[in-house]
Amino acid sequence: MSIAERLEELKIVLPEAAAPVASYKPLVVHAGVAYISGQLPFVAGKVVTGKLGAGVDLEKGREAARACGLMILAQLSDADLLEKVERVVKLGGFVASTTDFTQQPQVVNGASDLMYEVFGDCGRHARAAVGVPVLPLDAAVEVDAIIALKA
Amino acid sequence: MSIAERLEELKIVLPEAAAPVASYKPLVVHAGVAYISGQLPFVAGKVVTGKLGAGVDLEKGREAARACGLMILAQLSDADLLEKVERVVKLGGFVASTTDFTQQPQVVNGASDLMYEVFGDCGRHARAAVGVPVLPLDAAVEVDAIIALKA
Amino acid sequence: MSIAERLEELKIVLPEAAAPVASYKPLVVHAGVAYISGQLPFVAGKVVTGKLGAGVDLEKGREAARACGLMILAQLSDADLLEKVERVVKLGGFVASTTDFTQQPQVVNGASDLMYEVFGDCGRHARAAVGVPVLPLDAAVEVDAIIALKA
Repeated sequence: MSIAERLEELKIVLPEAAAPVASYKPLVVHAGVAYISGQLPFVAGKVVTGKLGAGVDLEKGREAARACGLMILAQLSDADLLEKVERVVKLGGFVASTTDFTQQPQVVNGASDLMYEVFGDCGRHARAAVGVPVLPLDAAVEVDAIIALKA
Repeated sequence: MSIAERLEELKIVLPEAAAPVASYKPLVVHAGVAYISGQLPFVAGKVVTGKLGAGVDLEKGREAARACGLMILAQLSDADLLEKVERVVKLGGFVASTTDFTQQPQVVNGASDLMYEVFGDCGRHARAAVGVPVLPLDAAVEVDAIIALKA
Repeated sequence: MSIAERLEELKIVLPEAAAPVASYKPLVVHAGVAYISGQLPFVAGKVVTGKLGAGVDLEKGREAARACGLMILAQLSDADLLEKVERVVKLGGFVASTTDFTQQPQVVNGASDLMYEVFGDCGRHARAAVGVPVLPLDAAVEVDAIIALKA
């Protein structure tokens, strides 16, 4: 089954790939590996804003992380690389958090679970998840990725 | 000397490799490089919690970073990769910090010095060390790693 | 045109490569890729300190990010790798920020724009930019880098 078919089966419609908000590229491929820039959580064209621990609850945070993951897929699709994914190698999850919110892993699972749903075992990845005080555009979550591509 | 022998010489007993606290893998190998997920500082089975600048002093922070480093070694060992380390390429050190604590490098040295002790010159690595407001499970330090493996 | 000539044309004089502030190396090369440690913003030999949103304005932040970028180039130069850059693959930008400062991308552009000025299209990279509460030596910005090298 192609990834496009799998997305259809999961009733996932990818968002339009977001243009970078500054002087960089959404992804760069080197030596068969795609380095994907930190993606923000766009839902219906608007960034999910706020902080976990102050107004954004765990479920909304998880959905925001999933939206970051969908944008990672959208960037791969935009670069015609979605069907060439060999392995999701690593995700980096940054969660806008108050100083007492400690469930960053559960938040970033929104992106991690998506990768497993879409790519199966090839979607299982290494990961770092950390709290940050604030993110660009006041986003609740940002996720970047390292993705290995088929030759 | 094997790494196992070197650990014995240093009287280092690796902890049991911690299971991921969420939907990801402790490490993924791609193209001869192991990407190791962010590891938390388990000492005697418990996470070292708190923040540098508020209750966790420099020495305790350094020990926490060393514990993260030991867990990186434990993950390599668990994947039967400890004897195949060619080079510690990069560590990423995240230090839970109050906004006026600026000695993140000295904290993360706990992990960096361990790599040098165990692997010698092959343990010397590039690094980024930053402050964060909070970490998963209220951990004091989190360290991830990129490790090159012998063919 | 060599990179040295291009720097001269741009009237850019690289700073002296800063020694690591702790137990790590400024860069490690593996498999044709240079991993560069997080670089701090030295201007005239002094670190630019403070936080965006509290005393450091956007323009000063951008200059600090550019100074981090210059230090990345200085590290490459110090390792005799400046003329061997094939592609700037990824930058990681950490911006010391109050919890309500959300223009991290505009700050990190100071480093990103520099890479484009110096390397042209090969300088266009993937990127993650996040806020952090505090950085080593109270630096305003820290930038690390992944740089692909010519064979």
